Amino acid sequence: MRQIAVTVVRIYLTEAEKKLNPLLKRLHDWEKVRGVTVFRGISGFGKHGKMHSSTLLDMSLDLPVIVEFFDEPDKVATILTHLSGMIDPGHIVSWQASLMSNDEQQEQND
Amino acid sequence: MRQIAVTVVRIYLTEAEKKLNPLLKRLHDWEKVRGVTVFRGISGFGKHGKMHSSTLLDMSLDLPVIVEFFDEPDKVATILTHLSGMIDPGHIVSWQASLMSNDEQQEQND
Amino acid sequence: MRQIAVTVVRIYLTEAEKKLNPLLKRLHDWEKVRGVTVFRGISGFGKHGKMHSSTLLDMSLDLPVIVEFFDEPDKVATILTHLSGMIDPGHIVSWQASLMSNDEQQEQND
Repeated sequence: MRQIAVTVVRIYLTEAEKKLNPLLKRLHDWEKVRGVTVFRGISGFGKHGKMHSSTLLDMSLDLPVIVEFFDEPDKVATILTHLSGMIDPGHIVSWQASLMSNDEQQEQND
Repeated sequence: MRQIAVTVVRIYLTEAEKKLNPLLKRLHDWEKVRGVTVFRGISGFGKHGKMHSSTLLDMSLDLPVIVEFFDEPDKVATILTHLSGMIDPGHIVSWQASLMSNDEQQEQND
Repeated sequence: MRQIAVTVVRIYLTEAEKKLNPLLKRLHDWEKVRGVTVFRGISGFGKHGKMHSSTLLDMSLDLPVIVEFFDEPDKVATILTHLSGMIDPGHIVSWQASLMSNDEQQEQND
């Protein structure tokens, strides 16, 4: 079983920022990343310490929203440069990981 | 405080694939991994660009489902080989991490 | 685009443990971490193999809850030492990652 190097990216937004849809459109239409998953957190707080929680009614529209994707390291590096204008860099975390792959042939044909 | 090396695995499925329960059963009964957590995403798209989103009614049965687990690197390598027949390898990402551990004694007794 | 090293931490709890609020209070008020996100899993099992699932009514109060945060490696190492008394170490996973940053000036002012 072969593995290929990928960079995993997690971008931390909140619902009130209204940045999710433009970001997804960008990643899907322009950057054409391998795949994206969006998660909603149930609570959280950011750099300024303000809590975002589903347990308090008046904060129910500002829950954390996390956008996760992975792709080849060079492609991700380029994407991150593109994103720096639309997303606060302090909300973008990335790390190296391995993606399973049966063989190169499959990689090319998929 | 001691730390031991683990491999974290994230497997990206969608609900429509119906692979979640067989995978959980395999990880629980056969592979006996240390622990598994399952998350549901609220939106996403895969390698072919098809969106899976909870905001569109007709796609509500095909939301992303992520299975996450971690265990010792050698054990995980074996598990990943076993999973290659049931899961698309391009949906299995793993990386090295550290698990906290108070001492070896506790590790052996737990 | 500059990147700074961070340690990402994921802590695996269950709702029935009632440890979430004390942990969040600790991370927010005392440790003053850069940001925390809390996720609820839809299913899972722990080291003892007991399933926690939202599909079984009687387990609906014991779903997985994951607390995720990241900060500078030295600060995280200190926090993890503090947490060892309140959280089972076998439920705390961490790894190295990169946080995007436009420049040092911004880091200092934010």
